[in-house]
Amino acid sequence: MNNFKTELEQEVGFINDIIEKFLPDETGIDKKIMEAMNYSVNAGGKRIRPMLMLEVYKLCGGNNFLEVYPFMAALEFIHSYSLVHDDLPAMDNDDYRRGRLTTHKVFGEDFGILAGDGLLNHAYEIMAKALIEGEGEIDKKAKAMEIIARKAGIYGMVGGQAVDVELTGKPLTEEQLDFIFRLKTGALIEAAFLAGGYLAGCDDETASKLEKAAALIGFAFQIRDDILDVTGSLEELGKPVFSDEKNNKTTYVTLYGLEKSEMDVESMSNEAVNIIKSIGNNEFLEELVCNLINRNK
Amino acid sequence: MNNFKTELEQEVGFINDIIEKFLPDETGIDKKIMEAMNYSVNAGGKRIRPMLMLEVYKLCGGNNFLEVYPFMAALEFIHSYSLVHDDLPAMDNDDYRRGRLTTHKVFGEDFGILAGDGLLNHAYEIMAKALIEGEGEIDKKAKAMEIIARKAGIYGMVGGQAVDVELTGKPLTEEQLDFIFRLKTGALIEAAFLAGGYLAGCDDETASKLEKAAALIGFAFQIRDDILDVTGSLEELGKPVFSDEKNNKTTYVTLYGLEKSEMDVESMSNEAVNIIKSIGNNEFLEELVCNLINRNK
Repeated sequence: MNNFKTELEQEVGFINDIIEKFLPDETGIDKKIMEAMNYSVNAGGKRIRPMLMLEVYKLCGGNNFLEVYPFMAALEFIHSYSLVHDDLPAMDNDDYRRGRLTTHKVFGEDFGILAGDGLLNHAYEIMAKALIEGEGEIDKKAKAMEIIARKAGIYGMVGGQAVDVELTGKPLTEEQLDFIFRLKTGALIEAAFLAGGYLAGCDDETASKLEKAAALIGFAFQIRDDILDVTGSLEELGKPVFSDEKNNKTTYVTLYGLEKSEMDVESMSNEAVNIIKSIGNNEFLEELVCNLINRNK
Repeated sequence: MNNFKTELEQEVGFINDIIEKFLPDETGIDKKIMEAMNYSVNAGGKRIRPMLMLEVYKLCGGNNFLEVYPFMAALEFIHSYSLVHDDLPAMDNDDYRRGRLTTHKVFGEDFGILAGDGLLNHAYEIMAKALIEGEGEIDKKAKAMEIIARKAGIYGMVGGQAVDVELTGKPLTEEQLDFIFRLKTGALIEAAFLAGGYLAGCDDETASKLEKAAALIGFAFQIRDDILDVTGSLEELGKPVFSDEKNNKTTYVTLYGLEKSEMDVESMSNEAVNIIKSIGNNEFLEELVCNLINRNK
């Protein structure tokens, strides 16, 4: 376990260096937008999505790492933009994220909107550039970009956000919570897995397995979030406990109880790891998945 | 001129049909986001950008029209998202656009943000899908997507919006106004021209010409906007006259006067048309450009 923690810290540092290379320089007449974007991305995130993409790429035998870096950065930027827009006053209206002021609190609400737009577009700009001049085969890169776009959009993350926003403060049915879990969190995890697989040249059968494993991980991750909302503390999370409950939010725990929630996390976690084992050997990825799902903050 | 008007109306109808095909169906748990997106796109726009892309594609000898349609729709969606976000309370705070309630006034501010995000992402989803399964050569399509992403982002339209927002209510220098004109309006016109050219397989020299012509058109278009803000009327524009001046905005007219503004529009218009003539023969495109720049609403 200690070994894993060291390895994890190193990998986060490594991914931060990659992300840094794809962030814009803060220069020019419009440098405030670059500053707001960089502030948003450098908010101390765990880099889960790019890390999963990289490790799945390795799992599937990928070895030309330069071809996967732009897609890792792009996916993290898409994740970052979604947080920046989620935090806006008209959305969740959060002043803090990970113990730090949110983007719109520092740069103003207009630049919260624009920084999010800038990050989302920048993600595609990076990927499109990688297609026309980067390492690797264009067909594989186009497939990776397409799955990221699909999973990030209205049939993926944005769709999940929309339902989440629309139903805020209302009691949710099981079907509605399932929809939000699968799309709002699960979709980008699926994008990470599939993009990693496609870039490594995986076949269709492996792609199906990757998507299934990712869906389980995303779902379990979200259940864990709901569990932590009940059991966590401000110190551990960097945000007030029960912040999701301030609007009377239905969670997995309120629907199914704490015991079933813990059991479901456990079985989904096991199933996901077994799928990963059936594809190839990547112990770090397996530990990462368990660590994410069983985290205590 | 009557012929042109008829042709123009037909072409707008034709492009509306294309755009319609790429809009999402309003179904599913998250149908409200689809409704907000479709409302935003169907706001009676003139479809200038996709029309220019199509006509430049023809100018450069393109004849496999199916390959250009997804990019036309995508560019219009990017334009639409920028208007939806521009209209938000934290930005320009406009309740009306083209005489109709803005998206956030109808669907709420949260769905104004999300519909914009959805449209921006949907644009890339359409293009990425066109890359992996659509008509035409993948290399040309990737180049078209890359230029659209670059011109739409922080080094293009978003950069222009950022400076525009940051300097709202402050007197602008000539350099600042130039920056805003080139990026906020010009960038997407350049994207339309270059994407049309790339998809038709144009060479580098032609691409340079296209970019130059588009920059002139975008700039002249924006000057005309400022002229109309002085000389137009509510009935003609569908928004209050001087709406851009409510925040004491510096415009081309306030900086250079009406006479020089008219002269500059004229000379830029002529130069753009001459560049187009030097590339090939497309009388409709020439008339379209003149019509855009010399419009009275």
